Amino acid sequence: MKDQNYSATKATQIRLVKRSPDYWRVTIDHPPLNIFGPEMLPQVGEIITAIETDERVKVVVFDSVVEGFFMIHLDFLANLGDMAHLPPGPTGLHPWPEMLVRLSGAAVVSIASIRGRATGMGSELALACDMRFASREKAILSQFEVGAGIVPGGGPMARLSRLMGRGRALEVILSADDVPADLAELYGYVNRSLPDADLDGFVDALATRIAAFDKQTILDTKRLVNFASLPPDIEIESGWNACLASMARPATQERIKTLIERGFCKPGDAENRLGEFVGHPGR
Amino acid sequence: MKDQNYSATKATQIRLVKRSPDYWRVTIDHPPLNIFGPEMLPQVGEIITAIETDERVKVVVFDSVVEGFFMIHLDFLANLGDMAHLPPGPTGLHPWPEMLVRLSGAAVVSIASIRGRATGMGSELALACDMRFASREKAILSQFEVGAGIVPGGGPMARLSRLMGRGRALEVILSADDVPADLAELYGYVNRSLPDADLDGFVDALATRIAAFDKQTILDTKRLVNFASLPPDIEIESGWNACLASMARPATQERIKTLIERGFCKPGDAENRLGEFVGHPGR
Amino acid sequence: MKDQNYSATKATQIRLVKRSPDYWRVTIDHPPLNIFGPEMLPQVGEIITAIETDERVKVVVFDSVVEGFFMIHLDFLANLGDMAHLPPGPTGLHPWPEMLVRLSGAAVVSIASIRGRATGMGSELALACDMRFASREKAILSQFEVGAGIVPGGGPMARLSRLMGRGRALEVILSADDVPADLAELYGYVNRSLPDADLDGFVDALATRIAAFDKQTILDTKRLVNFASLPPDIEIESGWNACLASMARPATQERIKTLIERGFCKPGDAENRLGEFVGHPGR
Repeated sequence: MKDQNYSATKATQIRLVKRSPDYWRVTIDHPPLNIFGPEMLPQVGEIITAIETDERVKVVVFDSVVEGFFMIHLDFLANLGDMAHLPPGPTGLHPWPEMLVRLSGAAVVSIASIRGRATGMGSELALACDMRFASREKAILSQFEVGAGIVPGGGPMARLSRLMGRGRALEVILSADDVPADLAELYGYVNRSLPDADLDGFVDALATRIAAFDKQTILDTKRLVNFASLPPDIEIESGWNACLASMARPATQERIKTLIERGFCKPGDAENRLGEFVGHPGR
Repeated sequence: MKDQNYSATKATQIRLVKRSPDYWRVTIDHPPLNIFGPEMLPQVGEIITAIETDERVKVVVFDSVVEGFFMIHLDFLANLGDMAHLPPGPTGLHPWPEMLVRLSGAAVVSIASIRGRATGMGSELALACDMRFASREKAILSQFEVGAGIVPGGGPMARLSRLMGRGRALEVILSADDVPADLAELYGYVNRSLPDADLDGFVDALATRIAAFDKQTILDTKRLVNFASLPPDIEIESGWNACLASMARPATQERIKTLIERGFCKPGDAENRLGEFVGHPGR
Repeated sequence: MKDQNYSATKATQIRLVKRSPDYWRVTIDHPPLNIFGPEMLPQVGEIITAIETDERVKVVVFDSVVEGFFMIHLDFLANLGDMAHLPPGPTGLHPWPEMLVRLSGAAVVSIASIRGRATGMGSELALACDMRFASREKAILSQFEVGAGIVPGGGPMARLSRLMGRGRALEVILSADDVPADLAELYGYVNRSLPDADLDGFVDALATRIAAFDKQTILDTKRLVNFASLPPDIEIESGWNACLASMARPATQERIKTLIERGFCKPGDAENRLGEFVGHPGR
């Protein structure tokens, strides 16, 4: 089956595999951290476009094969010059928030299967998916950005406020701290946390189930949930602009520099215990 | 007390009993499934009108006396011709979604006491009530419709999105699967799940308590919660129209036909395990 | 350190202590009930103004040092004549709801650390804070007002509906009953309930953590959560007007009179078990 397995691009950090014409898997495979390098942006874009334009796909599951990490934040050690100057997409949004907005609005059901750390862009990707399931033992979600002086740019203020209410959203985002899977379930950050041994089977059964339903019915139903639950694009745009403004401030540049000097964006304690790390930048 | 007990109509599938002038009970009694036949629509309508126009009633509890079922979906084995062509009510909505909208907006506190299965219209009735309490052992909620190729028509996309957030609402509606009481509590589908032995006492105490409060104060308070939490009617209307469109599609007609051939709408495994049933239409 | 400790006013019912220029504590100390007397209104106002105008403060924690009570309702035994005729603040709202609106909108993170009873205005203050943490053993939240014939005036219809969804908000407000800490956590009334022995340490660590982050980043992030989650002022104003109207009704005056005759607003069973008390006004 020629169509069954193909790489979205020459690079293989993000792999698209078609389990069937109805049911696709997108696997993040960029060891050791699944850190988001600028080269991953067009890969994600290509996959989102494939999801939007394919006439048969109904369900897409996002997961990771890297031990300890679902997907994390931007790689601040990479050359980011290009990324900041990318032209906006058709909606006028910067490519990253735009891809997320397109994923949420797509006529396809997206499910994040979270094992390991999902922070920054990894959390934002999970939040843009229609549903999120987490490994009870191994998933940790967070938006670490405020701890680095950055306003998160991919929409968590808009999305978490609507998922878990104002009080918990403010705690998650302003504390910038790790949220283990069970707390994520209590807060509604994820649909459910499941024993790690059950996660893959559960998500696969759910995806297979939905993939057997009628595509038009799925689309018409999702459209009505979208109307009731999605933030307006302009709110996402405002968050992105606040993110760019925060990154340009000298105080933030200084915070990021200090974090990098202490191991940020590299394998080790900084990324393995990011919540604690950004809470004690001086240690 | 002449006024104390009366049947809303000659048929007795839905009984209205006035415990007191302040506190009414509506009991669904249409064995063996509490399936929703077209003849029940005017009965519900008559009860909603009584709730709206009575000057004293403050609290109405909806429950069932049929083992295993709170209230389920439309009876696809009945003659539905009449139902599709009912004239719209005063708001322009079809009678079913309109009754639900009126119940939510009424100056009376409505409480669903759920024991057994509440799916389709049964779930929609519960969701239109102001509060929902579920038997931990015996309540199962769901919107099975997408599994039959149908967009749910009584507002669950609008209501569940606001009750439990986008991720969980999409899971409940698009999976079309059974939601046991404890998961329903975690998701906010119900206020609480209670041990079956405690459910009746709890709901009765709560209803009695509220029925002793001032009617005008209840109304003025509920009105402000309505403003903050009810979906606009037009969103319910859009869902109803999507439902009708889905039922008219040949693919959906085919799905429903297959389900009926396998036992849908009849006592037995199909209805007793509806989530599993619609997930495996070919078995 | 001259600035470190000062009283906001000559009265000491509400004390402001600056742990550091970044991190303030506001402690309610009006034994035996932390009941809200009219003299406390300007004290709260002064503190809110200090929070709004100080250039360095980032986090403010509200707590109580009175055993059994975080903060409760208006003191109906006090001379309330002055309070009803206070001129509106700059937004046009009455001073109480306006202070709450200003606290929610302030460029400072506010955290309620709840030990003991928080009802009426005490619950409303907690709800106006950005986050709420509760002692599992000792915190009880409620909006008792409907039980006294009063529509709550400080915004709980608007705020609870958005925090916990329509069904649970209606239950909390219309039942007017006590909500223990664990139920408050399940419903999202508080972010989390914590063992009493852990509460102070947890809140202090969270406040200290956020106080080390960048003030501009906190502000820009909170502003976006505000947009997604705060009710419009006009909704709060409508609630306040409904409260005033309810208090002017003879039926409500009669209810309050009966409650006062039975011990309301005084130390003892009425306030120690307020939920039960308002549910059985005749006993």
